[in-house]
Amino acid sequence: MKPIPTVTLLLLFLSFSAHSQQSLWEGAEIKSPEIHANQTVTFRLYAPQASQVKLSGDWMPSEGWIPGSVLMTKKETGIWEFTTQPLESNLYGYTFYVDGLRMNDPSNVYLIRDVASQTNVFLIEGGQGDYYKIQDVPHGTVTRRWYPSPTLGSTRRMTIYTPPGYENNKKKYPVLYLLHGMGGDEEAWIALGRAAQIMDNLIAQGKVQPMLIVMPNGNVSQTAAPGESSQGFVQPTMKLPKTMEGSFEISFKDILQFVDDNYRTVPKKTHRAIAGLSMGGFHALHISRFYPSTFNYIGLFSPAILPDVNATSQVYSNWQETLNNQKNNGYELYWIGIGKSDFLYEPVTNYRKILDDKNMPYTYRESEGGHTWNNWRIYLTEFAKLLFVNK
Amino acid sequence: MKPIPTVTLLLLFLSFSAHSQQSLWEGAEIKSPEIHANQTVTFRLYAPQASQVKLSGDWMPSEGWIPGSVLMTKKETGIWEFTTQPLESNLYGYTFYVDGLRMNDPSNVYLIRDVASQTNVFLIEGGQGDYYKIQDVPHGTVTRRWYPSPTLGSTRRMTIYTPPGYENNKKKYPVLYLLHGMGGDEEAWIALGRAAQIMDNLIAQGKVQPMLIVMPNGNVSQTAAPGESSQGFVQPTMKLPKTMEGSFEISFKDILQFVDDNYRTVPKKTHRAIAGLSMGGFHALHISRFYPSTFNYIGLFSPAILPDVNATSQVYSNWQETLNNQKNNGYELYWIGIGKSDFLYEPVTNYRKILDDKNMPYTYRESEGGHTWNNWRIYLTEFAKLLFVNK
Repeated sequence: MKPIPTVTLLLLFLSFSAHSQQSLWEGAEIKSPEIHANQTVTFRLYAPQASQVKLSGDWMPSEGWIPGSVLMTKKETGIWEFTTQPLESNLYGYTFYVDGLRMNDPSNVYLIRDVASQTNVFLIEGGQGDYYKIQDVPHGTVTRRWYPSPTLGSTRRMTIYTPPGYENNKKKYPVLYLLHGMGGDEEAWIALGRAAQIMDNLIAQGKVQPMLIVMPNGNVSQTAAPGESSQGFVQPTMKLPKTMEGSFEISFKDILQFVDDNYRTVPKKTHRAIAGLSMGGFHALHISRFYPSTFNYIGLFSPAILPDVNATSQVYSNWQETLNNQKNNGYELYWIGIGKSDFLYEPVTNYRKILDDKNMPYTYRESEGGHTWNNWRIYLTEFAKLLFVNK
Repeated sequence: MKPIPTVTLLLLFLSFSAHSQQSLWEGAEIKSPEIHANQTVTFRLYAPQASQVKLSGDWMPSEGWIPGSVLMTKKETGIWEFTTQPLESNLYGYTFYVDGLRMNDPSNVYLIRDVASQTNVFLIEGGQGDYYKIQDVPHGTVTRRWYPSPTLGSTRRMTIYTPPGYENNKKKYPVLYLLHGMGGDEEAWIALGRAAQIMDNLIAQGKVQPMLIVMPNGNVSQTAAPGESSQGFVQPTMKLPKTMEGSFEISFKDILQFVDDNYRTVPKKTHRAIAGLSMGGFHALHISRFYPSTFNYIGLFSPAILPDVNATSQVYSNWQETLNNQKNNGYELYWIGIGKSDFLYEPVTNYRKILDDKNMPYTYRESEGGHTWNNWRIYLTEFAKLLFVNK
């Protein structure tokens, strides 16, 4: 039996990637996106038969809810190209429209799902983006784990981040409960939110306390993210039942119990934080006042505020009273972040007035931009630094 | 402050999914793939300006290395459509080609990455596919964890499956080390291989012993899968250095050590199995004889067999002698699976002759098809049932 030369094996194996050969053009690899030293970015797509190709990126100004886009230019090679102005360090998403048809960049295999769409991503280093990058620092462990929820009568999935070193000591840790928005699930903060990278990097810099991050699924009609439950490969949707009518808040005690039973936590208010974005901000607001003396740190990121007029759950009855209780019980931090152009800006302003009237202290952070993951990643970076420092 | 009606909130939130509205056509959702009761499947793509749309699926006969494809038919609505013959229960991948341009199905958010391409998937229930489906059974835990490799001088990432109940008892468990092929990484078996679903379902049926599955990254030039290390969002490639030249085998002791130190294992040959596909079959073959009396169960799935002629590592010197040692030391199972049309069929046949000449017992499984994940998922399903049953 003759040994097989590596080259032959390689050629054979390479043939499997026939599907990916779209990224080859006459033997030359198409590089897209190409990030240049001056932080401009060139996008390329080989589409000789197309009559129009557009690029849409989340750094472009949008018109209302219509994402911004630019026309790409066709070269003689059949490659369409566009180069941006220098972009600030950040994580960005983009997509192509070929004769009106949305498609991902075949030269960029990195996609992140947001609700029902997959979007290509790239990262520009040298600033805020460095928090979202996997750096050569100690890494925490990320676990997908199922837990029982007796209240909901189901077994459900959560994502848990344990900090570097957790497995190799006997310490007890504080916990941040981090909640997603409408259309999100237990994958949202770890994938779109870059929560593990942010924590690894901030911990390595000594800027945050090592802590657990628990990311449950806030849609009680799901046991897990789309594709991760026995519902199969269902099309994800924003239109889920039972998202903001009290069930999640009432069942949250099951999550607290499971985490304190299964991880080395300090099961005390002093060592618990809760934060969430949009619907998750709503959940964090209502959970933190519904469970008295349970959370010392509350973070509302672009939060939805008040319950639906038709919500009848006990969670929302006497909500002002329980807010008073929350104030009287005391807390270290009540943090509210919102973008100036967020569609929830006005309700948040109104909610701040309620807090002002109660003399209920809070930290307010107003950022540029709107209801975006760009803002929520920044809020997490800032909020996490304030947690568990006054123990 | 007026409460916000849920409907208004929903409408506002829904606007975020503007990017996903491609799956809407004049208000009606395009369903693709649509799996019918008779196991035929209809694919649809709205592309009114396209002059040709092809569908390529991994159930179609391929011509050599060229994946099979069919032309789709344009309806008056601008929607292209194709309906298959009834398909057997299985997990399938497919892609569209619009005027030659490869694109994913915008109506199907489920993609799995294989090396450098993302491919849409769907699942047909009622047979083999049921093993790949997430069923309402107890679920194991899936963890991405970093471990030190002193031999390689790096911290590396592995994926670990612990069976249902692992966290809630004091039992010690056997371990299957499960290795990926060329171009793969520590994500391959969990994503493409459906390893967690297969194990959850087989354990629930009482057909396999509860065990840990450790899925390390077999490319020593990577600390983690593409996109999961400090190399950033690099384009994945098959052409990595140091894949089959001995480094991985030599450093494998670090993985054994880490797993036995950090998990409740039985650190004995009787409770260890190792298996791999293609390059991972090569690794399993050579690791299992290079570490004497370490593994009682060996699985070679479509394995590459012999080292490159230029490989000089001590791992491959006297490989026949260490194979004799392996035989003399004894083992429960030496399992070889290969597809009839696999390009490695002949080298595997030659390797079997070597084993026959040594009177070295093995179990041989010849399947239809070639060098595909379809086969490797089946092999795992069959192989796992044979493990740790004679304790």
